[in-house]
Amino acid sequence: MKLQVAIDLLTTEDALELAGKVAEHVDIIELGTPLIKSAGLSVVTAIKGAHPDKIVFADMKTMDAGELEADIAFKAGADLVSVLGSADDSTVAGAVKAAQAHSKGIVVDLIGVPDKVSRAKEVRALGAKFVEFHAGLDEQAQPGFDLKGLLSAGEAARVPFSVAGGVNISTIGAVQKAGADVAVAGGAIYGAADPALAAKELKAAIV
Amino acid sequence: MKLQVAIDLLTTEDALELAGKVAEHVDIIELGTPLIKSAGLSVVTAIKGAHPDKIVFADMKTMDAGELEADIAFKAGADLVSVLGSADDSTVAGAVKAAQAHSKGIVVDLIGVPDKVSRAKEVRALGAKFVEFHAGLDEQAQPGFDLKGLLSAGEAARVPFSVAGGVNISTIGAVQKAGADVAVAGGAIYGAADPALAAKELKAAIV
Repeated sequence: MKLQVAIDLLTTEDALELAGKVAEHVDIIELGTPLIKSAGLSVVTAIKGAHPDKIVFADMKTMDAGELEADIAFKAGADLVSVLGSADDSTVAGAVKAAQAHSKGIVVDLIGVPDKVSRAKEVRALGAKFVEFHAGLDEQAQPGFDLKGLLSAGEAARVPFSVAGGVNISTIGAVQKAGADVAVAGGAIYGAADPALAAKELKAAIV
Repeated sequence: MKLQVAIDLLTTEDALELAGKVAEHVDIIELGTPLIKSAGLSVVTAIKGAHPDKIVFADMKTMDAGELEADIAFKAGADLVSVLGSADDSTVAGAVKAAQAHSKGIVVDLIGVPDKVSRAKEVRALGAKFVEFHAGLDEQAQPGFDLKGLLSAGEAARVPFSVAGGVNISTIGAVQKAGADVAVAGGAIYGAADPALAAKELKAAIV
């Protein structure tokens, strides 16, 4: 299982600083949606330039203009680009077309999709490299949230998947046990007093 | 009925040039999602600086982190910010909270929402200033697409609404007749040989 750090900061400078601290312990560096909107796709170029050996994930969360949005993100240096599972099939297919042209990959983010298992199978058939079983920051903030529903959906879908939604040192074992290909940690790394140590410990918890 | 130009270009320079040509004929200048992701929110600041008397709409299409994403867009100079109708209620409510703090407005984009009429009422109750009955660029490109379904949904919802989905000189009359508060034109303006003339004619077609 790979470890992905989600960088939900707002400036290229802060993203570069965090990536510099944690890159050696992670496989995938994700530039979060608010960061891309705030700084523009130049943040993807900056991170890929600083870490050419890492997989760089642009969390575009594309809802429309699938081919165009994926194309500009790949041109900026992304290896993986996300499209929303709630987008039209034509949007997912357009993004996959752009990925094929660049020999890169599309990840479909299932945030907000009511029937995640069915949609996971559909978008995999449309050419997604993997799907992300994802509870957003707003959903995580609600009382009673836990990761179990995402993990059981991931297990049931039987397609390659990542899990994002408050993954931390006490839950990463369960994520791996559910069969995830990628565990995504955001606040557990960037919110830690020592982000490098937090990333190192998460990586070490993967068996 | 107000006229909104959707600027689906990719650079701040091109957006400023188009806005300069058409601003006198439109009420709302929309910076498209791919433009914001490509250039960053500085494009919003640049357009608001050049056209302080116009309503500037940042088409953020927010799916998560509603309060944060709306806050950074308002801080950049936006008067209106979009949130996806497929987002969680907590995301819409968070964005509305940010809008209230800035005395600005949230527009909920119903692209991809299966039951647009019901969702329109829900998000209006959550505090959206208006809703956008929207067929995306990918959906418009499909055979057989027409605007009628959006217009009848808009009429049925009985909340303030805009219509976006290939509005042009031959359809803007029907958009107004359906009771829309805002007609959004993108390609009909930016794709025209003379964008200023196209915007002027669309404005003149509003009675």
